[in-house]
Amino acid sequence: MASIFTKIVNGEIPAHKIAEDDNYLAFLDAFPLAEGHVLVIPKQEVDYIFDMEDELYIGLQLFAKKVAKALGSAIPCTKVGVSVVGLEVPHTHIHLIPINGVEDMNFAKPKLKIEASRMEEIAKQIQAKL
Amino acid sequence: MASIFTKIVNGEIPAHKIAEDDNYLAFLDAFPLAEGHVLVIPKQEVDYIFDMEDELYIGLQLFAKKVAKALGSAIPCTKVGVSVVGLEVPHTHIHLIPINGVEDMNFAKPKLKIEASRMEEIAKQIQAKL
Repeated sequence: MASIFTKIVNGEIPAHKIAEDDNYLAFLDAFPLAEGHVLVIPKQEVDYIFDMEDELYIGLQLFAKKVAKALGSAIPCTKVGVSVVGLEVPHTHIHLIPINGVEDMNFAKPKLKIEASRMEEIAKQIQAKL
Repeated sequence: MASIFTKIVNGEIPAHKIAEDDNYLAFLDAFPLAEGHVLVIPKQEVDYIFDMEDELYIGLQLFAKKVAKALGSAIPCTKVGVSVVGLEVPHTHIHLIPINGVEDMNFAKPKLKIEASRMEEIAKQIQAKL
């Protein structure tokens, strides 16, 4: 069965997309720890990031870097933090999170609820920096 | 002034080293969230990971991948999680953490205290898988 992220890639599940090319997609996390919390994925369904072939893995990391630079310009923050956990969805995804303190990276804390209109605004702000 | 990680690179501060080449170093985090918590750094002092030149950045990510695979083989865990926070030491470092639950990636929780002899044992176990 297709992962939830593959469904986003295919447009079967809506998402606030940020950037996309043939191999990778970045979109706003629907359950964000902070405004501007982005997920970056390979379109190919690989469960575990370290099982990726080097070429695809390098491409993913460079794509994430490009998105992170735009994110850091668009959303006021000290840095853009990076996290790869991968215990829930079996499709590699890199979290990019605008952070100001270490607590901003704590996945155990309650997720934010952000209105769709605000999510759209945030997505546009990040895209404008790409 | 040299960062604490540069001092580790130069051997001025001791560390349980795992792997090293001309540009990168991996060693056990002295304040681990889990047994086998590793830090991977570029020897060049760059504060923010996304300010790294692409070539050095790609090399770092490939070096981290190699270490993560060894780590995952050496230490029983569901996956090796990845985190880049960078709010404390102004020298890029990737955390590689053997995880079984999301709480294993929470930097706000108290760090483990592990005896030096046990740290040495863990370092050797990971090295044996490289």
